Amino acid sequence: MNTDLLSDSNVKKQILPVPREWCTSDGRTPLAAFVNFVHPVSDALLNYIDAHCFAHTIEKGKLLLKAGEICHHMYFIRKGVFRGFVKEGSKEITTWITAENEIIASIRGISQQLPSIENIQAIEDCELIGGSFEQLEFLYENYPEMNIVSRKLLTQYYADAEERAYISRLTKANSRYKHFISTKGQLVNRIPLRYIASYLGMTLETLSRTRSKMR
Amino acid sequence: MNTDLLSDSNVKKQILPVPREWCTSDGRTPLAAFVNFVHPVSDALLNYIDAHCFAHTIEKGKLLLKAGEICHHMYFIRKGVFRGFVKEGSKEITTWITAENEIIASIRGISQQLPSIENIQAIEDCELIGGSFEQLEFLYENYPEMNIVSRKLLTQYYADAEERAYISRLTKANSRYKHFISTKGQLVNRIPLRYIASYLGMTLETLSRTRSKMR
Repeated sequence: MNTDLLSDSNVKKQILPVPREWCTSDGRTPLAAFVNFVHPVSDALLNYIDAHCFAHTIEKGKLLLKAGEICHHMYFIRKGVFRGFVKEGSKEITTWITAENEIIASIRGISQQLPSIENIQAIEDCELIGGSFEQLEFLYENYPEMNIVSRKLLTQYYADAEERAYISRLTKANSRYKHFISTKGQLVNRIPLRYIASYLGMTLETLSRTRSKMR
Repeated sequence: MNTDLLSDSNVKKQILPVPREWCTSDGRTPLAAFVNFVHPVSDALLNYIDAHCFAHTIEKGKLLLKAGEICHHMYFIRKGVFRGFVKEGSKEITTWITAENEIIASIRGISQQLPSIENIQAIEDCELIGGSFEQLEFLYENYPEMNIVSRKLLTQYYADAEERAYISRLTKANSRYKHFISTKGQLVNRIPLRYIASYLGMTLETLSRTRSKMR
């Protein structure tokens, strides 16, 4: 791992105010609106988020975070699809895929400010709203209700991660593909098949055969 | 899934007060002491936990939770080792292994009170301290600091689940075994090799070969 790459540095160069057209009719940024959707919180907390978050765009194919970097930010996906992948030698293994209305970050960044094991890549042109972990810590201390928001979100994300760990252990290709369709089916036409095959731990040929059989 | 099996019913028959010899020198139950270790909380919160938690023992080989049941409790492991496993046809696939000083529960129970996908089995004679999700919800509402405790714990458990999802996708047997040794090495002599092989997605023969090579 290249630990010289300190932080998601590409991002820092491109911190932009959130465009008005991204905001809700009452002027909230999408990140504040999302937080309030997870658990209704005070206007003071939402105002803090609106004042401190930033817009970030990233082109298809580019990395939001490289393995070895320490992730200092989390992002709400306003538009686009991302994947997480790890490298095993020269091989890329897709570990998760996610899209609009989800939060992404390196979990090792959140929990311990350790270098990320995984890379995070945009697989479409994407629009994000970012906030720093430092600001998140400030919210935890000064607006205790933020702990409720994160507790609820983490419960969901933990359940999703368990599900991923579970799916990847199924031995039958069609069981794994069925699970994928039931949870991520709406994304299937937006993701290159080679990433889906890698996520499901099968070759492209096995994926194609599985899809044909299930049609 | 057999949804007639409502809840971890075996447990209900065996709810016992926490023995004094399990408690700390200042009389706290191990569950309250653990909560206070994760994040220091008020005596009122700890008193609530001490008054409402219960002791539970389970013999080696028995199930704490069956797939299809809705899990209503969470447990702190005072002593022993557990594994989670799912069935794919007649095959058992071990999805996680954990031991002393950890909390176990069905994540689908915590997040949505849905039937568990997995079975939870004692692989040694075990001693547990249990509490109900209903009491946990009471704590969230009446002692907001409990949200901080859970936020911290869930961050850790989420990171661990990501790690499990990651390890299971590594293609090389020795990479997977090395990861296992680095995170669970201290448990290796307490877990039957067939469960470790299943957890690592390899045959018993491959595991034995990998272990021999690494010696």
